[in-house]
Amino acid sequence: MITDGLEVLNVGLPLIVEALDPATVTQLDWRPPAFGDDAAARAALSLADERTRAANDKAMDAIHAVRPQLVGVKPATEVVPGMAEGRILLHAGPPIEFERMCGPMRGALIGATLLEGWADDPDGAQRLLASGGIRLEPCHHHQAVGPMAGVLAPSMPVLVASDGGRSAYASLNEGLGRVLRFGAYDEEVVGRLRWMREVLGPAIDRAVQLRGPVDTTALFGQALAMGDEAHNRNVAASSLLARRLAPAIATLDHGVAVLEFLAANDHFALNLSMAGAKLSMDAAIGIPDSTIVTAMARNGVEFGLRVAGTGEQWFTAPVGPADGLFFPGYGIEDANPDLGDSAITETLGVGGFAMAASPAITQFIGGTTSDATATTLRMRRITTRPHPAFPLPPLNFAGTPSGIDVLKVLDTGVLPVINTGIAHREAGVGQIGAGIVEAPPEVFLAAVGALAARR
Amino acid sequence: MITDGLEVLNVGLPLIVEALDPATVTQLDWRPPAFGDDAAARAALSLADERTRAANDKAMDAIHAVRPQLVGVKPATEVVPGMAEGRILLHAGPPIEFERMCGPMRGALIGATLLEGWADDPDGAQRLLASGGIRLEPCHHHQAVGPMAGVLAPSMPVLVASDGGRSAYASLNEGLGRVLRFGAYDEEVVGRLRWMREVLGPAIDRAVQLRGPVDTTALFGQALAMGDEAHNRNVAASSLLARRLAPAIATLDHGVAVLEFLAANDHFALNLSMAGAKLSMDAAIGIPDSTIVTAMARNGVEFGLRVAGTGEQWFTAPVGPADGLFFPGYGIEDANPDLGDSAITETLGVGGFAMAASPAITQFIGGTTSDATATTLRMRRITTRPHPAFPLPPLNFAGTPSGIDVLKVLDTGVLPVINTGIAHREAGVGQIGAGIVEAPPEVFLAAVGALAARR
Repeated sequence: MITDGLEVLNVGLPLIVEALDPATVTQLDWRPPAFGDDAAARAALSLADERTRAANDKAMDAIHAVRPQLVGVKPATEVVPGMAEGRILLHAGPPIEFERMCGPMRGALIGATLLEGWADDPDGAQRLLASGGIRLEPCHHHQAVGPMAGVLAPSMPVLVASDGGRSAYASLNEGLGRVLRFGAYDEEVVGRLRWMREVLGPAIDRAVQLRGPVDTTALFGQALAMGDEAHNRNVAASSLLARRLAPAIATLDHGVAVLEFLAANDHFALNLSMAGAKLSMDAAIGIPDSTIVTAMARNGVEFGLRVAGTGEQWFTAPVGPADGLFFPGYGIEDANPDLGDSAITETLGVGGFAMAASPAITQFIGGTTSDATATTLRMRRITTRPHPAFPLPPLNFAGTPSGIDVLKVLDTGVLPVINTGIAHREAGVGQIGAGIVEAPPEVFLAAVGALAARR
Repeated sequence: MITDGLEVLNVGLPLIVEALDPATVTQLDWRPPAFGDDAAARAALSLADERTRAANDKAMDAIHAVRPQLVGVKPATEVVPGMAEGRILLHAGPPIEFERMCGPMRGALIGATLLEGWADDPDGAQRLLASGGIRLEPCHHHQAVGPMAGVLAPSMPVLVASDGGRSAYASLNEGLGRVLRFGAYDEEVVGRLRWMREVLGPAIDRAVQLRGPVDTTALFGQALAMGDEAHNRNVAASSLLARRLAPAIATLDHGVAVLEFLAANDHFALNLSMAGAKLSMDAAIGIPDSTIVTAMARNGVEFGLRVAGTGEQWFTAPVGPADGLFFPGYGIEDANPDLGDSAITETLGVGGFAMAASPAITQFIGGTTSDATATTLRMRRITTRPHPAFPLPPLNFAGTPSGIDVLKVLDTGVLPVINTGIAHREAGVGQIGAGIVEAPPEVFLAAVGALAARR
């Protein structure tokens, strides 16, 4: 038996050398391609050709050509397709039945049911939802996105991001604390939603009409130079937006209350970042042969992936909780599995992909400044192009890595990182932390299989 | 004669090897201490003892203990010492007579004379100033600071930064373009100053009374995590401040116009950064034996330095123009020598010293992101402590280098860098660029001589 003087170079699982002194082991970061799935590796190889390359060029041209403008804030019934037809509520992530939903999503649906006046109390709302009395569909099926539970009700005001032809929608951000998107549904929560419907939404809409559309690419491009990553950190974009709209808001009834709300909400711009990203990514939906990811979304039970070449098909896999920093008194055992459509920001190339822009976010989600830069550099390995309008100052203004290619994910074994909030697993408790998750490998394997089958 | 195969290591002036292929020369960054001044080197050596160390500890404790609060905006006559006594105007930098002043400072004084109604037209103002009919004194002699020409008139509103006991003052920022601080004095400029006196100043004052004092350390600490360096880049602090004050401003007459002004002025917070820095640095004035710099200020002809241990004495030397990026159509031949009290920010440890926080500023003043980080690291060599309330996220939250020690400047030959705007040399033209200057070595040599003479 060798007991000393050992120097080990390990190319396989770290497990095999765990018993040794770590100082003597050099662990190579090599993994078999396609996460060790031979059939997927062969499928990926069959797709790695000029046809795919041309399709991906077309997809990236289309995505980066979109310049979303916030043109207004309207009731969902007026603008979101299919929201004026009967009782319907939208939720985050891929499709899921009420019975299988996680606590925070059920809580948010209960709150939305009360907001719509379809039930008098939480028990009644729960019964109505469980009985199938309300259609439940993903936001993504209605050109919309929502953070965390992502519940969107017909009477809610939505941000309208438009490129002239198409539009995408997102709810208004409620701020932190006890809020619907983390599954809280008490009277404070529903009361705030009523105020947002009656006061905040119309005020932001009027301000946008008075001050002119907001170019979201310009706004978030500027915010990336101000320490935002446009997902979990949005204080710069929220401040810039509030300052820009303030002169118009000041002329309105209740303008002071609206300005108070904006002054206290560092996350207000998140939902606009999401709507802009959704509009951008939808430009590539259905481009044949393209292996570019167009959506990543979580419903708190499953992670869902969409790829350009397979249109509106979802590839799903079970999802775990995020690792990160928990608020005092909470830990990973309290955490709900990951949740929300907000990963649309990473799909475009901001959020976790733009961590290098946002060293300060490490104080919110954990890690160090060097981790943040390393994460952005790692995401370059699985993306297609730098985003031309999202320069990262700490990387000498190189664009943020944009356009996840499922073939590159399989080739490198590098999984997309997603910055995220962490909800308590029980309905009604709310946010308990923030952190980072990786997308599960299974969805990329399934997507490559489906793409290969179409050839 | 050796013509090839030469590899040169040079320890002296680069001049001697300039004729050689640069690829063959390694230039060591070594300079004789005290910039080659033997007497100053000996004086510095005589001061490098425990007595100085203890005095500098005391000075830094005092400086970092100050937590300036913006408590209001008042007419200078009401709060700035000596401003209610006859005709007086303040200017940037060390003392200087009207005859020796540069174009932009004369222009600004003409504009201020018109604002005060002491003359009917620019010619009359010029005659009155030249005849000695108005006392001209440095802002620094009145607990005040002003950017560029730094002209402060009695009727102007000033930001009041207070720590409960002492106060420091700065004018309100006019925005960019044709403005008094760059020497413009036409009717547009003076009209804006009247509006600032009658509307903007009282509105900001009222908003601060309604919303409560603004902790400038907290504000600029947050802004450093958002790409500001709190001198030439202030868009984050300006946006955060505007968002915070907006609900109060919205309740006032002319509130909309004030919010419009704030929405368009990315530099509004600069003057607050300066007032806070002035209050902080003044805490160390007159601490015996301390070799810490308490002020750096330029009047467009001379650079002035103050050191804690020599109290209110100025050490001056001629100053040159800043190197940087010029607006289209202008170049260094148009540039006025460096100007302004704003180097009080670098004296505290932000501005050029916090460049690492602000990679985006390289687009405004030139250089690359790595230059920005290198500048902050270089400033560590001549400073005393990291500022505990100004963490720099790109440097893993290490505090910005704070407290320039004149002994360290002589020992290393490293000169403080200052981010600055560049004024046209003729009165009335305005800003033509932005860039970086180094403080001149002569002032540090003179300060060390004076400190040694006091022993």
